[in-house]
This record gives sequence, C-alpha cells and structure tokens, in this order.
Amino acid sequence: MPSIGIVTPQSMHFAEPLALQSGAQIADYTLMYETYGTLNADRSNAVLVCHALNASHHVAGHYADNPKNVGWWDNMVGPGKPLDTDKFFVIGVNNLGSCFGSTGPMHVNPSTGKPYGAAFPVVTVEDWVAAQARLADKLGIEQFACVMGGSLGGMQALAWSIMYPDRLRHCMVIASTPKLSAQNIAFNDVARQAILTDPDFYNGDFYAHGVVPKRGLRVARMIGHITYLSNDDMAEKFGRKLRNAAETNEYAFGFGIDFEIESYLRYQGDKFSEYFDANTYLLITKALDYFDPARPYDGDLTRALAGTKAKFMLVSFTTDWRFSPERSREIVQALVNNRRSVTYAEIDAPHGHDAFLLEDSRYMNMVRAYYARIAGELQ
Amino acid sequence: MPSIGIVTPQSMHFAEPLALQSGAQIADYTLMYETYGTLNADRSNAVLVCHALNASHHVAGHYADNPKNVGWWDNMVGPGKPLDTDKFFVIGVNNLGSCFGSTGPMHVNPSTGKPYGAAFPVVTVEDWVAAQARLADKLGIEQFACVMGGSLGGMQALAWSIMYPDRLRHCMVIASTPKLSAQNIAFNDVARQAILTDPDFYNGDFYAHGVVPKRGLRVARMIGHITYLSNDDMAEKFGRKLRNAAETNEYAFGFGIDFEIESYLRYQGDKFSEYFDANTYLLITKALDYFDPARPYDGDLTRALAGTKAKFMLVSFTTDWRFSPERSREIVQALVNNRRSVTYAEIDAPHGHDAFLLEDSRYMNMVRAYYARIAGELQ
Repeated sequence: MPSIGIVTPQSMHFAEPLALQSGAQIADYTLMYETYGTLNADRSNAVLVCHALNASHHVAGHYADNPKNVGWWDNMVGPGKPLDTDKFFVIGVNNLGSCFGSTGPMHVNPSTGKPYGAAFPVVTVEDWVAAQARLADKLGIEQFACVMGGSLGGMQALAWSIMYPDRLRHCMVIASTPKLSAQNIAFNDVARQAILTDPDFYNGDFYAHGVVPKRGLRVARMIGHITYLSNDDMAEKFGRKLRNAAETNEYAFGFGIDFEIESYLRYQGDKFSEYFDANTYLLITKALDYFDPARPYDGDLTRALAGTKAKFMLVSFTTDWRFSPERSREIVQALVNNRRSVTYAEIDAPHGHDAFLLEDSRYMNMVRAYYARIAGELQ
Repeated sequence: MPSIGIVTPQSMHFAEPLALQSGAQIADYTLMYETYGTLNADRSNAVLVCHALNASHHVAGHYADNPKNVGWWDNMVGPGKPLDTDKFFVIGVNNLGSCFGSTGPMHVNPSTGKPYGAAFPVVTVEDWVAAQARLADKLGIEQFACVMGGSLGGMQALAWSIMYPDRLRHCMVIASTPKLSAQNIAFNDVARQAILTDPDFYNGDFYAHGVVPKRGLRVARMIGHITYLSNDDMAEKFGRKLRNAAETNEYAFGFGIDFEIESYLRYQGDKFSEYFDANTYLLITKALDYFDPARPYDGDLTRALAGTKAKFMLVSFTTDWRFSPERSREIVQALVNNRRSVTYAEIDAPHGHDAFLLEDSRYMNMVRAYYARIAGELQ
C-alpha cells in the first residue's frame, strides 16, 4: 500500500484567549496540524484524527527532509488505506500543551517572557476539543464526516460527540474508555511521581537550568510501555530470553541487563527521554485521569451521551488490559440506551493496547468498511 | 483468635563461608530468626515459614517493647490458628541480604571494613534455601514437617523440595510461580531503574554519603504495590473517589493529590522508603527474576521436580494477576506428571496477589485442614 508521500506541517495562530475547564485561560496559542487529501466542494468529507499520548499532528506520510519520520497512523491513513485520502480530507492536529509544535510548557509565557514550565495551565480533553473546534472554524469546516481517535484520541472523539453534536456525522472511538479506572490512575501517578521527584525537574522550570529530567521521564515511559503491551505478547516476544543467549546464556548476577525485556524497556525509556517533554507528560496524564464525561451526571454515562447525534463505531482489543473491551462496551451500552446507531467490533488481537496502532487485517477491514459507508453517504 | 503474644527474635552466626550460585561467596554471616511453639521429642513437628519481598523472620506475635509490631502472618500462625503453634514448632527466618537483621548490604564487609553496599553479592532463592538448611542443621532439625511460603516465599518452599527432598515431608506453595514472566521481570526492572538512577543511590554506596535513595525506593514501591492489588479490588476500594470528596469534590487542576488512590499509593511509597534498604530491594527483585528451577532442564518443570519427595499443597487466588492461578497450575501439572501427591486450591478472592496475606475463611480453612492432616501424621 503506497504511503501518502511527502507532507508538510502547518500552523495556525489563535489570538483570542481560550477559557479552560480549570478556570484558567490561555491568552493566545498556536496549533500545529497537517492535512491529507482534498476538501470537497460542499466541505462534507473532512475527518479529524485525534492523537494519543506521545503522538502528534503527524498522522501520515513523511517529511521531505526526513523520510524516516513516518506518521504514527500511516497504516491507517493514505490513498487506498482504510481512511482513504482519495475520498476524505484528513486533518491531524497537535494538542495544546504538547511538545511537537503546538503551544506548550516549553514555549514563552507572554505574561512573563520566560518558558511556561510549571505555569502552563492544566488542560483537559474537553479543552483540546474546544481548541480543535476553533481550528475547524478557521479551516471552514462546519461539520466533520467523522472524528476519530484511539486511546486518549478516542476520548477526544467521544468528547466531540458530546460537546458539538452537530459538528460530526460519525464518531470512531478505538481502544478507549469512558473514564480511567483506579489502576489506570495509579500507573499514571507513579509515572508522574517519577518525573516530579527527579531533581532535574526543578518544579517544572528545568528549561532555565539547562537540564532535562531524563531519569524520571525514562521510568515514566517504562511503566507506561508495560501497560501498552499484553502479558501474552510480551511472553511471546521476550519471554525469559537472556540478552547474551547467543554467547554464554548465563545470568550476569548484577544489576545490568540480563533479560531481553529489560534491554527493550530501557531502550524505549532512553529514546523517549531524549525527545519528550516532562511537563507535557504530566499534562497529558492528567487529561487522561480527568476525563469522565459522566461525572456531571452522577456517573450516568447514558445521560452524558443523551445529546449526541453522531453515528458511532467502537473498536476494542481482547488483550488490551489498559482499556479492556469491557470499557468500550460501557460506551456501547450507554449509546444503545440512547438509541444511537452503534457499530462495535471486539478484535481478538494479541498485542494489548498497542493493537490500535498495528496492522491487523480484521481491524483494518472493519475501519475500511465503515469509512466506505461514510464515503457512500457523501454522494 | 488469640495471638501468640510476646516473641523474641534470635540470631545465629555462621562462621563457615557460604558458596553462592553466582560463584561468589559470603565469608561469614548471621541469620535472624524467631520460633513459636515447642519442638517435640522426635523433632518431627518443625515448620519453616519463608518470607516474601518486604517481610522478615517476624512471622507472628509482637515484641515486648513494641506491641504494634505484629508479625506479617499473625493471622496464619499461632495457637489455634491454621498453622497451630500448639502442635507445631514454627521457624521464621530472615534471608541473607535483607534489611531486618540478617547479614545484608548495610552491614560491614569484613574484607573492607566498610558497609557492603554494591559489593554485597547477588543471592538467589537457592542460596537462601542453602543458608536456611544450615540454620536447620544448627537447630537440630533433620526434616521439616512442612516448608511453606507465599509468593517469593513459595519459591523458597519449592526450592527446598528440589534441593533437599529428604528434609521436608510437606511443601506448601501459596500464590507463587515456577518462574517470573516477561511482564513480571519488566515491573521489577522499572523498579530497579528508579532506584539505580536516583542520584542519592551512589552506585549502592549511599551509606557513606549519609543519604538514602528515597525517591527511587518510593517509586519502586508504588509500582510494586499496583501489582499486588487486583484491578477490581482497587476499583472497589478507591474507584475515582477524590480525596476532597467531603469538601469541594472538584478536580484540583494541578499535580498534587486529586484521587484517593494517589494518596494511598504515595503514602505506601513514603512509608516504605523510610524503612526499606535500596540495595536489599535490588537483591530481592533479582532473586525473583532469576528463580527458574526448570532452567537446567531446558525449561522442563516436570524433570526439575522429578527428584522431589514431599507431598504438596498449592494455593492460588483468582484475581492475582502478578502470579495468576495459571502459574500455580503449571507446578501442579508438573507434580502430577511425577505422580506426586498434590492438593490444589484456587480461591475465588477479590484481593489480587495480596490475598495470600489476608483473612479469607475458605483459604484459611484449606490451610488449617492441611495442617490438621500433617498433625495427624505426627502421632
């Protein structure tokens, strides 16, 4: 399947302050975004793709000066792909507070002339969606054919359906949940504590000290990574294989690397700590923790979704223990209670939470079929 | 049920060097232990209780000068309790490398005159068992009525049955596993990395610097604690309850404590970092990772257990996702393959891995009945 090829990120500045759920506001901000495909004449074929934890606006294709920097959902979005850019105008947008170009903690706070750091306000899924809606306004898109996302991106899609029911015809929520469990929050908080207690964090103002809290970020990423993979998948890929299996195949009796899984996780942690911003990590985990659209309705998700108008597609993966199928079924049930149109697929995939990013023909074919249906409605 | 009351720890010094699995040796060492009940005339009623991660020789009762310091398995061991000290002579022993009195990294290395620190040798489950066997020798116990333990303690019991088949008549392995999975190792390694990268760790020689790597220990404990509890139990106990539920019941929009589960985990981490030794934590997680009695037999657990002579009892707990029932069943199957006598109970308990330490009448009654059977054999 060909990729969409070379793409170019764009930026949009917003001079009007954005009021946030916390009561704070951002005076002005910039959002990075990319678009793929062509907006049709009646502006009815736009699809918004919302990103998860460590992703960005760079959903598909690659950059002219960096062919290896391929978009995070390139297997999903492109010509002839499940979300077919020959038929749809696709927008990837980087969220507020991120470290990939949109205004975030490492940018200058206009009120102090120094990087925001700890002063960057806590943002929520709903704040991100409000900012995305303004981007849609500026791009002249009144109504999306679909808003889609996986994991935290799925939360944004769900929030769109609640906040702007008339602005999307379809909503695709993949490997997501209506709210984090205590265990989900626990993992997030340990990751945050690793960052917050790193002496190089300096209460979020490490930029001024010329250091980066790499130790904390590294541990945070290692913890997160364990929850993205399934137990079975880890067992199959790594098992108890020693890194020196081809040589001595003996235990090292020290605290270096014995097992392949250690090597893999430390590598993932190291790599992440090289490019990700610690304040962004904190912000994003908080957005995850806070997401709970049923909260204003005493926990009643059916009431929370009563005002939605979109048609929904949900997908979950059997071995995802971060956001298990049960969590998707809660959303499906609440939508059914509201007599919404819902398509739901539970994919028997071994790859845990990460499955939503991976090639799996049953999964991809489900999404492809659903977009074919949406494309049919465009005629 | 009355507790055994006031108990007094004892220590035993061993002047003969102990050769370790790594090839290193410990020149001389001390083991802390406690005993409860009375050794009968033919020395046939001794039971050894092996401890898990952060426990010690203090299995039951309390200390005269500290009535609140109750043994970690006081609900299991005592007069009239499942392991009845009116019938059995019970020994709790603190393992080598621990931080509760037995020789460990914080003690003086006789070859340097300074604390061992990083120089303390890596010890394995088999090393611990070898040291325990020497203690049994000195106490004049040729054969135990039973060796028992939960989790890492269960690994020691299993190792006893393999290493000293004639020295135990029964072996009780609770909430344990024949080896760690890749996911188990992954959690251990993240915890180790949190400690190893704490600037106050000083490569294990923090004693000389007058500091303790509390940040690392705290994060390590928080990670561990998540794996001891079940998802369901955490959901029921904490859910998404806010700490300020009785006051504003609003999100704080910061990185302090929002949720009860955060408060609980941070408290557990703080408390642990006040008393546990960082080098001990590293050693114990390595002992867990390395345990794999089937390793010399190309992974064939049946062959590994072929030489055992004990009768076995295994217990697992349905919601234990750290060492799931499946892992206990592997041991049961290998024992059955060897035509050993095996009693196996899978307890439907909500408390995850921690269930082995908690009161549960079905669990306790199973253990009680098994010990009644052993007591019957004493006549």
